[in-house]
Amino acid sequence: MPQLKLNYFDFHGGRAEPIRLALAIGGVAFEDNRFGFPAFAEFRKTTPFGQVPTMSVDGMQVTQCDAMLRYAGKLAGLYPTDALQALFCDEVAYVVEEASVRIGPTFRMTGDEQKAARQALVNGSMPVYLAWLQGQLAAHGGEYFADNRLTVADLKVFVDVKGLNSGRLDHVPTDLVQQVAPALNEHAQRVANHPGVQAYYAQFAAK
Amino acid sequence: MPQLKLNYFDFHGGRAEPIRLALAIGGVAFEDNRFGFPAFAEFRKTTPFGQVPTMSVDGMQVTQCDAMLRYAGKLAGLYPTDALQALFCDEVAYVVEEASVRIGPTFRMTGDEQKAARQALVNGSMPVYLAWLQGQLAAHGGEYFADNRLTVADLKVFVDVKGLNSGRLDHVPTDLVQQVAPALNEHAQRVANHPGVQAYYAQFAAK
Repeated sequence: MPQLKLNYFDFHGGRAEPIRLALAIGGVAFEDNRFGFPAFAEFRKTTPFGQVPTMSVDGMQVTQCDAMLRYAGKLAGLYPTDALQALFCDEVAYVVEEASVRIGPTFRMTGDEQKAARQALVNGSMPVYLAWLQGQLAAHGGEYFADNRLTVADLKVFVDVKGLNSGRLDHVPTDLVQQVAPALNEHAQRVANHPGVQAYYAQFAAK
Repeated sequence: MPQLKLNYFDFHGGRAEPIRLALAIGGVAFEDNRFGFPAFAEFRKTTPFGQVPTMSVDGMQVTQCDAMLRYAGKLAGLYPTDALQALFCDEVAYVVEEASVRIGPTFRMTGDEQKAARQALVNGSMPVYLAWLQGQLAAHGGEYFADNRLTVADLKVFVDVKGLNSGRLDHVPTDLVQQVAPALNEHAQRVANHPGVQAYYAQFAAK
């Protein structure tokens, strides 16, 4: 196995969390380099695009979270080998990432500007992608998004849904997922109950 | 092989062009459904996110251009089977797509607003990603972005560079690539000279 070091903010969420989960579930050793926002200001200078996560693979710096997630999924056995199932898996990840890109700029806003921007998403693109995800889940058997088993697509959606439900996103109702696509909450519970996911978070609880 | 139908605007560029090229180079039959902007207004109503390209695979509608590109690459033999080479391939595609997402909103602008927005990109993120791409190319042998052979990453960059050089993007200097990352123009010429790429465009010239 390659030497992996993953660099990201110190919280259980965001663009690195599906990668952390995939590696942990697959028993793939990696250095989980976490930092706060002050340290990020320095760290970003060492990255090509000023963005995290980055990952080093045997010392080579790699960017782009879902490229890393797919790689982690292959190492961990959580990525379909069948081309069509991989397509379904990838499509879901892109849709979730597209939603993240839309909400991204609102983190740099405050007050009424942030409120207006987030409400526009809540009343616009957010229910569309959540309903689509729920439809995909149903179309592929109702339990997982691809390959009839846990894949990186499930981890990507799981982290997204947890974030939406968390209350950390001001002006996004914490019952949005439940109102629009309740099957995604059932799916999130299914993923949370996975032994590998349970074991991963138990490490932190024990600390 | 599955029955494939690719739906996109009728021009040699944009988000479907790397998919068309990959399928054509690999000899994978597909229906190339092209339309103009007026027809798009109707077509988009049949898509989940109002976006193209979409692809139907044995009648199932699929979205997300780079998910389709990766799938097309697998069918065509233009996607690495090695996980690390696939990571390099994917990283390049994400970086190019991120740049496309940045320039996207400027297509809906006009006049001074468009000029200011595009100049900000030309003086900001565009040279950064172009120089990074040039560095990746050099780091991987100088000819191709991954796997020491033509992959979908090369097709993605090729279409992007052709677009930047085309003069179709007002306020983006047509020598930007040449000034910032001339090896990308050599790379584009290498891809253009590929027999599969030559044969693909020759079909249109013959019409």
